[in-house]
Amino acid sequence: MAGAPAKPRAVVLLSGGLDSTTAAAWAQKRGYEVVALSFDYGQRHKKELTQAKAVAKALGIRDHRVLKVPVGDLGGSALTDRRIAVPKAGKRIGASIPSTYVPARNTVFLSLALGLAEVTGASAIVIGANALDYSGYPDCRPEYLRAFERMANLATKAGIEGRKVKVKAPLLRLSKRDIVQLALRLKAPIHLSWSCYRGGARACGTCESCVLRAKGFAAAGVTDPAGA
Amino acid sequence: MAGAPAKPRAVVLLSGGLDSTTAAAWAQKRGYEVVALSFDYGQRHKKELTQAKAVAKALGIRDHRVLKVPVGDLGGSALTDRRIAVPKAGKRIGASIPSTYVPARNTVFLSLALGLAEVTGASAIVIGANALDYSGYPDCRPEYLRAFERMANLATKAGIEGRKVKVKAPLLRLSKRDIVQLALRLKAPIHLSWSCYRGGARACGTCESCVLRAKGFAAAGVTDPAGA
Repeated sequence: MAGAPAKPRAVVLLSGGLDSTTAAAWAQKRGYEVVALSFDYGQRHKKELTQAKAVAKALGIRDHRVLKVPVGDLGGSALTDRRIAVPKAGKRIGASIPSTYVPARNTVFLSLALGLAEVTGASAIVIGANALDYSGYPDCRPEYLRAFERMANLATKAGIEGRKVKVKAPLLRLSKRDIVQLALRLKAPIHLSWSCYRGGARACGTCESCVLRAKGFAAAGVTDPAGA
Repeated sequence: MAGAPAKPRAVVLLSGGLDSTTAAAWAQKRGYEVVALSFDYGQRHKKELTQAKAVAKALGIRDHRVLKVPVGDLGGSALTDRRIAVPKAGKRIGASIPSTYVPARNTVFLSLALGLAEVTGASAIVIGANALDYSGYPDCRPEYLRAFERMANLATKAGIEGRKVKVKAPLLRLSKRDIVQLALRLKAPIHLSWSCYRGGARACGTCESCVLRAKGFAAAGVTDPAGA
């Protein structure tokens, strides 16, 4: 409901991981004023929220919201249900959907980003989804994101009045190596980012998220500045 | 993640109003085992949640979830922001989008219903949306609901594995008179339903929701059993 901002505005989903940290830096580089949005969704640990706040601060983002959402209450995922173990990465990451899949997670997150975009007058929603070196989650695929954008522009007052919102996923077709290289080019504060599904003092190194991250740094030929 | 249920299951969005109460009774009549879903979204009053619980009980629904969602935290609506007054109904209800519009509300609600549908193995999501005698909200229109359903089946593990979910809006093209008559035919417990946007001891009779409800009962030639 805000007036047209001087700079175009983008709502960036910021989990505090490598990908969303890079996506936020990308949005700033593209000239967007970033409104960062993080979620407390009953994940096993709050470490990613602490790191998301540190990342937002390092990027100079003034508007960072943390919303509590009850995705975890639905159950069914190793990321939110302590009765389900976080699995070690298998040999063929992405070949099947793992137990870390959270039902409808990105749909719930993007829906709240859509509401925030309308309220703040943002013309873009930016998500660090990746469909190449990823865990096979259905809600990270290009056809899903296109269908969400189409639905979004039928859902809101802004959309039907012609103020369309774009769903941008700048990392969608990048390998983890490419993402690491993009992050370094953008000087994204990835030393503050946290990817591990577990919430220990140090990253576990064995969950899918850790394995994908390590693979990216190894392929890029650089040391992970987070010291993971 | 549950096995195939004996009866098909439907997640029904239950606000406790006339329309959702009728939609829940409709789903039962169609043979669905109903999982009811209500939201505490920072609405001005909790009366609709009390009534939603009473309606679910009267219908014999055993699984009724109430989720807290932060839609109200986004601001921008008279229904969740006490600084914005609930308007009296205008002469041409639905001609423009009123201040009671909550940004992305149905998208957030349907997204959580989608997650619950996947976890409970439900094959349908039922919403009491109505695009005839309504307030002109964009997220009550047929094209929006179709776009949501399309997106939903690309979003989930169930969807891409072929266990599709249908979004059903049985009241979509009914007038308020038709809805009242359907409710009476179904013996829906509408005496327990609550439609008023304000949270007084009795319905105010002047907000859009009260005016639309009164119009429906008057046109059907019956007295509102809620005594509103």
